[in-house]
Amino acid sequence: MRNSTYRNPQLNANGELTHLLSIDGLPREALLRILDTASSFLEVSDRDVKKVPLLRGKSVFNLFFENSTRTRTTFEIAAKRLSADVINLDVARSSTAKGETLLDTIDNLVAMHADMFVVRHASSGAPYLIVDHLHRIGRSDVHVVNAGDGRHAHPTQGLLDMYTIRHYKKDFSNLTVAIVGDILHSRVARSDIYALNTLGAGEVRAIGPQTLLPTAIDKMGVRVFNTLQEGLKGCDVIIMLRLQNERMNGALLPSAREYFKHYGLTPETLALAKPEAIVMHPGPMNRGVEIDSEVADGSQAVILPQVTFGIAVRMAVMSLLAGN
Amino acid sequence: MRNSTYRNPQLNANGELTHLLSIDGLPREALLRILDTASSFLEVSDRDVKKVPLLRGKSVFNLFFENSTRTRTTFEIAAKRLSADVINLDVARSSTAKGETLLDTIDNLVAMHADMFVVRHASSGAPYLIVDHLHRIGRSDVHVVNAGDGRHAHPTQGLLDMYTIRHYKKDFSNLTVAIVGDILHSRVARSDIYALNTLGAGEVRAIGPQTLLPTAIDKMGVRVFNTLQEGLKGCDVIIMLRLQNERMNGALLPSAREYFKHYGLTPETLALAKPEAIVMHPGPMNRGVEIDSEVADGSQAVILPQVTFGIAVRMAVMSLLAGN
Amino acid sequence: MRNSTYRNPQLNANGELTHLLSIDGLPREALLRILDTASSFLEVSDRDVKKVPLLRGKSVFNLFFENSTRTRTTFEIAAKRLSADVINLDVARSSTAKGETLLDTIDNLVAMHADMFVVRHASSGAPYLIVDHLHRIGRSDVHVVNAGDGRHAHPTQGLLDMYTIRHYKKDFSNLTVAIVGDILHSRVARSDIYALNTLGAGEVRAIGPQTLLPTAIDKMGVRVFNTLQEGLKGCDVIIMLRLQNERMNGALLPSAREYFKHYGLTPETLALAKPEAIVMHPGPMNRGVEIDSEVADGSQAVILPQVTFGIAVRMAVMSLLAGN
Repeated sequence: MRNSTYRNPQLNANGELTHLLSIDGLPREALLRILDTASSFLEVSDRDVKKVPLLRGKSVFNLFFENSTRTRTTFEIAAKRLSADVINLDVARSSTAKGETLLDTIDNLVAMHADMFVVRHASSGAPYLIVDHLHRIGRSDVHVVNAGDGRHAHPTQGLLDMYTIRHYKKDFSNLTVAIVGDILHSRVARSDIYALNTLGAGEVRAIGPQTLLPTAIDKMGVRVFNTLQEGLKGCDVIIMLRLQNERMNGALLPSAREYFKHYGLTPETLALAKPEAIVMHPGPMNRGVEIDSEVADGSQAVILPQVTFGIAVRMAVMSLLAGN
Repeated sequence: MRNSTYRNPQLNANGELTHLLSIDGLPREALLRILDTASSFLEVSDRDVKKVPLLRGKSVFNLFFENSTRTRTTFEIAAKRLSADVINLDVARSSTAKGETLLDTIDNLVAMHADMFVVRHASSGAPYLIVDHLHRIGRSDVHVVNAGDGRHAHPTQGLLDMYTIRHYKKDFSNLTVAIVGDILHSRVARSDIYALNTLGAGEVRAIGPQTLLPTAIDKMGVRVFNTLQEGLKGCDVIIMLRLQNERMNGALLPSAREYFKHYGLTPETLALAKPEAIVMHPGPMNRGVEIDSEVADGSQAVILPQVTFGIAVRMAVMSLLAGN
Repeated sequence: MRNSTYRNPQLNANGELTHLLSIDGLPREALLRILDTASSFLEVSDRDVKKVPLLRGKSVFNLFFENSTRTRTTFEIAAKRLSADVINLDVARSSTAKGETLLDTIDNLVAMHADMFVVRHASSGAPYLIVDHLHRIGRSDVHVVNAGDGRHAHPTQGLLDMYTIRHYKKDFSNLTVAIVGDILHSRVARSDIYALNTLGAGEVRAIGPQTLLPTAIDKMGVRVFNTLQEGLKGCDVIIMLRLQNERMNGALLPSAREYFKHYGLTPETLALAKPEAIVMHPGPMNRGVEIDSEVADGSQAVILPQVTFGIAVRMAVMSLLAGN
């Protein structure tokens, strides 16, 4: 029992979600409960008064050690629509710069009666360190949401991707899902692969140049393809990954133009997938690098619905954590 | 009909304001409706609880592609007093920096159920591009307020200037209004000139050195003066413009001291206007450059009331847009 | 009467607090009233809905001319838990950078119907300048809280320190309180010394190297010690000060390591104080410079309760100012 708590720091003794750190290790029921809760929040954002009082009087801290206006905004909106008080901490410029340790910063914010931390950090595992510390000081009533840690995980992105797939395809069991691009550096890819396997997707494919695939990729329960043409054949869902600019001038890739030629999703390559296949992208897109504008703006793209579902999923996660 | 919609992207089919982009093209009734609505909001800021629930649950995004703490603050206060959720996006540091296009950013925020964008941009026309895009994707329920675009327009500043003039002078028809300074680079001047002509001001004067006047200024319905002494004679209203620092060391002007000598408003030059003339300035002031401190702090200055009226005018614009 | 108002710009004609600028000059009753009010707010932060409507509809401006995320956050939380609208102004990047004077900025924000300014400034006396100006323009209904000005004062830190001491030690009259470290550059030390003397502490000690003690320190009602060993003997309360990084490479101190050797609080030196002595620190801590981790995390440290009390004290100050 203690051991399972140790291996699953996201769940409390009753198996309820108290932190969201990674999709790896979350049971199927936990994933489905988040998706079902998100369904009920989707409607809130369509109301005239887009607010529910579930987190009224709660203090949510956006702790972004790594800058990401997009992700921070989605969590800020989700928290405000739940009526929470949101405090954005530009941590790069704050006390950590003055030599304070991460855990001293956390201790201070806990002492200010923080209820939830949304954490983005360049180091894999930073949110785990915080959860571990909260556990040690006996404050498991304070919740942590991982908003992206290093190359490790980006669980809310994985969840909103699952929400999107379920929305358009209903059942996971017969689906072939392709993840295309820089899987090596992508926390989104990792979160998606775990989620798809947990939810019982028919087949998960990883498509990319050898230099951008993790070495142990075959042990992750995916089928590897090195060409887009082969990999896309018969797919129901295509998840394109963003190619970080810093990869393009590096040793890993010859050039953005070369990358697009081989791995950019165009109307021609998309035609190799099933006719009703959907195209996803976590954003922000590099048009003309990993995806052609005609596809990005085409009828099969569900990239903007992903964003809408993302708000509902983040509201679901926050309200479930606060409720447990 | 479609053509008039095309030429007037600010008005809906019923002639109601759905975006505020420019005073140019707004009919007299639309201007007066904003001013009248602002009157009713002026009292809200004087209350003990300075809040009305008109925009409760609405998400207002401050999209400042060009930094302006002052203007951003006025919109933030106005939106919060209307009970909106306000999200400030420091766009310079966000996804646009990662190569995302302006319209992809807009699409994403619309997918997050944005209700209103307050846009400041260094390029003239950027807010029009956004409105055009919203129209194209069928989302004319999302509203845009231009908070200053390039040299083109700053309509809420123009409106608060009109509110101020009407407050002190009641009727426009007999007024002589002088706009003094760097009219060439001033979006405020352009907005004021359109508004004054629409509201039927007796005479609008443009005063400044030839190098700081637009070439086609005579076609804008103003009388041009190159000396302050001539131009101020018999004026009822004097609108001083801020001299941007970057102009002073350029080819357009010899020096700040030289500028002050010829175009700075002093008690002596002010005495050339009517005795009850009012002095306005959009702020922030360069004391000793375009205006003498004695005038700025004198009894004829209405520069701080302009700021107060500015909050009421922005509340009026936001609530009218959200209501239409 | 006018003269006393002049000497005590923090109090109104009825002797009630209208600004909090410095503990120096505040009568004992005013201090006690703040501490008693804070007691009642302590419980609010423990509630499920951590909010009271005392400042609803009020506009609180965080005017941080000097960057301090930590202090800004505590005031932002305090104001939000009082239901105020909080506007953070990143003043370094705003109009002051465009050459606007401090008082023009204040005039503008007052014209926007600001109710309270929380001011942090690198120059000693800046908040006094603002209060003086508000008095001159007849707007004493707008309140100022000094959140740290130069080397001069940091009154809310002083107050939360007093709250902490009273919480753990009840009565001040028999206490020996030691303040250790860079007293020369510390506004916290100055505020603490005034508060302790006003509240009738038995003995206040200043411990530090001669180079880090003010020259007139003996006139401040403290007993000076140059060694930690002598100074800590028999103490009930130990207030450690943060050693600014910039001091360490300067002419004032040989090195951080040398400093720690002589003035760092370790379990050994702490043992010289009374066994039930408490250890305080304003944060952020430099572990291994002014304080050993074993002490910082030990059972005598009350550093995190200080943070908790700090929120209650700031809520108390803001609500008292707004009520008077």
